[in-house]
Amino acid sequence: MSLADSRPRPETPGRGDTPARGRPRSEAVENAILEGVVHLLEEGVPLAELSIERIARTAGVGKATIYRRWSGKEELFVDAMRAAEPSDPELPGTSLRDDLVVLLEALRRRGLVSRSSAILHNVYAQMKSSPKIWAAYHAAVIAPRRVVGLEVLRRGQERGELRADIDLELANDMFVGPMLVRTVMRPEGDLPEGLAEQIVDTVLEGLRPVSSTAS
Amino acid sequence: MSLADSRPRPETPGRGDTPARGRPRSEAVENAILEGVVHLLEEGVPLAELSIERIARTAGVGKATIYRRWSGKEELFVDAMRAAEPSDPELPGTSLRDDLVVLLEALRRRGLVSRSSAILHNVYAQMKSSPKIWAAYHAAVIAPRRVVGLEVLRRGQERGELRADIDLELANDMFVGPMLVRTVMRPEGDLPEGLAEQIVDTVLEGLRPVSSTAS
Repeated sequence: MSLADSRPRPETPGRGDTPARGRPRSEAVENAILEGVVHLLEEGVPLAELSIERIARTAGVGKATIYRRWSGKEELFVDAMRAAEPSDPELPGTSLRDDLVVLLEALRRRGLVSRSSAILHNVYAQMKSSPKIWAAYHAAVIAPRRVVGLEVLRRGQERGELRADIDLELANDMFVGPMLVRTVMRPEGDLPEGLAEQIVDTVLEGLRPVSSTAS
Repeated sequence: MSLADSRPRPETPGRGDTPARGRPRSEAVENAILEGVVHLLEEGVPLAELSIERIARTAGVGKATIYRRWSGKEELFVDAMRAAEPSDPELPGTSLRDDLVVLLEALRRRGLVSRSSAILHNVYAQMKSSPKIWAAYHAAVIAPRRVVGLEVLRRGQERGELRADIDLELANDMFVGPMLVRTVMRPEGDLPEGLAEQIVDTVLEGLRPVSSTAS
């Protein structure tokens, strides 16, 4: 699992133009810590036993080095999970359909990554049984994605690309639901190339035969 | 939590026309065992610590009484979960739309039950982190529901109520996905009355404005 796409954290104290105080606070240190978390998870350490002390020992840093960057285990863990996933995509902005295809394709790719990684798969399950960690992951990763999706739909509705009478929350669930059912809930479900396009086009078009009148 | 709708198990030895041998093998004994499982889960006993011995002690029966009815902990646990959920609905068979509304309404009601029960909610999460128990639950509960849904769609397609060019697996995910996203993945998601009808009608109709031409 690569942490290469782990983003810099501009809010980290000691970062940016001001010189670091005391110990070096490079991105390398941060990556070592995130990789330490992933390493422990890969070794099968249950989330409940993942302590800051153990992470510090694994990464070869002091506990204070971790606490200078993360408020606690939950925040650090969520960052490690985020770094292990593909980053969020750029939206083309050319049409509702194009933006939705890119969003759903990103979901499909994340699904493939999590399937190919036994640790990610197992960790998701553990995360869901810890309300505190799940809430942190939800707030940091899932909620922002949902906001982006709703914004794409709102713009599409304004431009007349989406029925005006449609509730946007429902529309969002109609697009992401079929993809999430396959990526998250059915580990054996097919995730072929082109699935994002297929879902977006079919949801836009509807399932009723064209010649049929509404019942 | 009521176990009243726990179904009889015709495959249980000693049931049916032949008189029970030795100890009584009534439905009451079976319910006592299932309720013992639920009781332990309600007390917060983690799934991993739920042994046949402990269940037997709680239900006031011998271990052999349990093993005469269930092959092991996984099968018993899945039965207890199934008994705690609303039973599967009867399909009206009047139209594709009507059948789909009934299936989605059953999902919605199950979602409401699992939300109102902290234990069900917690147990689902634990279940998902145990591959063996999840596989047993999937095979006994989820897979048969999926077969019913696909059969409803196949009949609808034959009768011309569903586009002929639609892949049935995709169609199934398009109907159940939006509901499952709300019931399973977003505990704070709205589950209002009428949601089943709304999803079915909107998926059939499509999200593209009626006047718009296909892009």
